[in-house]
Amino acid sequence: MDSLCFTSETTSDGVVERGFTVGDVPGVLWSPVSGPASAPVVLMGHGGGLHKKTPALVARARDAVTRQGFSVVAIDAPGHGDRPRTAEDERVRAEFRQAPDRDRFRSVSIAYARSLAERAVPEWRSTLDALQRLPGIGRDAPIGYGGGISLGTAIGIPLTAADPRISAAIFGGGFFVYDELLAAARRITVPVQFLLPWDDEHVDRQSCFALFDAFATAEKTLHANPGDHRTIRWIGIDEGFLARHLN
Amino acid sequence: MDSLCFTSETTSDGVVERGFTVGDVPGVLWSPVSGPASAPVVLMGHGGGLHKKTPALVARARDAVTRQGFSVVAIDAPGHGDRPRTAEDERVRAEFRQAPDRDRFRSVSIAYARSLAERAVPEWRSTLDALQRLPGIGRDAPIGYGGGISLGTAIGIPLTAADPRISAAIFGGGFFVYDELLAAARRITVPVQFLLPWDDEHVDRQSCFALFDAFATAEKTLHANPGDHRTIRWIGIDEGFLARHLN
Repeated sequence: MDSLCFTSETTSDGVVERGFTVGDVPGVLWSPVSGPASAPVVLMGHGGGLHKKTPALVARARDAVTRQGFSVVAIDAPGHGDRPRTAEDERVRAEFRQAPDRDRFRSVSIAYARSLAERAVPEWRSTLDALQRLPGIGRDAPIGYGGGISLGTAIGIPLTAADPRISAAIFGGGFFVYDELLAAARRITVPVQFLLPWDDEHVDRQSCFALFDAFATAEKTLHANPGDHRTIRWIGIDEGFLARHLN
Repeated sequence: MDSLCFTSETTSDGVVERGFTVGDVPGVLWSPVSGPASAPVVLMGHGGGLHKKTPALVARARDAVTRQGFSVVAIDAPGHGDRPRTAEDERVRAEFRQAPDRDRFRSVSIAYARSLAERAVPEWRSTLDALQRLPGIGRDAPIGYGGGISLGTAIGIPLTAADPRISAAIFGGGFFVYDELLAAARRITVPVQFLLPWDDEHVDRQSCFALFDAFATAEKTLHANPGDHRTIRWIGIDEGFLARHLN
């Protein structure tokens, strides 16, 4: 059982940002400078090729701390951010760049997402174990998955299906949906907010609708704005979703 | 030019409800007991077969008055509520009930919606003219269309396309989309919130996606919840949409 070791700490604008490791996995924990113990914890996934401190993720994390009093956690996915890539990771990334056609691009993307999710789910669960042993968080803090479209969802769906500690989740489109993901979605019974970039150039909308349909929860909302998964500007999202389910 | 004549007035829970007529068209105006002049005005459409004081509409109207300080207006669609039905209306309604199959049901629905919208758009515009001559509202009050799915949208889309006074609109699915409606949507450039009952038994989702795609506005949001247009329970809608665009 790996413990959480803090590696850095800075404070600005009312937010404490602490770097940590759990085993080999580096992460960041953002928390209010002061607040009640056992405040809700939100797990945030990053997109493919990005990392735990991608500017958009940091902005969302700080906003959730400041406006809602949540703690927010992000970890680097395998082979992302500060983590080494395996020979297999390098090979797949090269294949991505060289994919001769759409079908090959799709199949390489799916194989890579599946491989990352298989490794990332136990890492997230160990991170959660370690976080729950911290005095400021403990076992009573409600836990939500705060999304990320694309890779953040490819990891988040099997994680939420596997871990009963997660009681609400934000997912989204922007990646290729595959069968194991649909199967995992069918095991999810907690409230889901699903964010769909309406005009993704790579991903078929219908596959995202099938994913939305698969969630075995009565309380689910699909929210779409124009744009693809890089240009999307989210407008009119239900910002109170996690607060409603975690407080 | 028809004037607005008030026919009744009651006050409860901080909301003044006044019945009125503009020519032959009966309507209701809900307003705050006290508030600034030129507060935003929201036009609310009712669904097919319903009327201006359908309980769900009244609840939404009173909520908008109480929580947002808006004035809200509803009028009966032709042949609905307190209005007489023409022989043609009666004939079409009988056809509805007797439609032998899905295709016929669809074509009768579309013909009826088209006929109602043709009559209702000039009625709404006369109502707006008359409202703007009221001292408490005037020509400076921002105006939004507050929806209703189904018939409220079949009327609201051509109305919003035709009337430049409307500066934001909530529409929704739950009815059969037809070509004139798509053409009108292509002329709409104001922000749009689009509410889609995800599991409508009659209406093909794809036709609603085509309608959402048609709006010629950069700021549009599609919001879907499970359910058909009678059982839908809206969760996680952006309640601040009209306030953001009308204030």
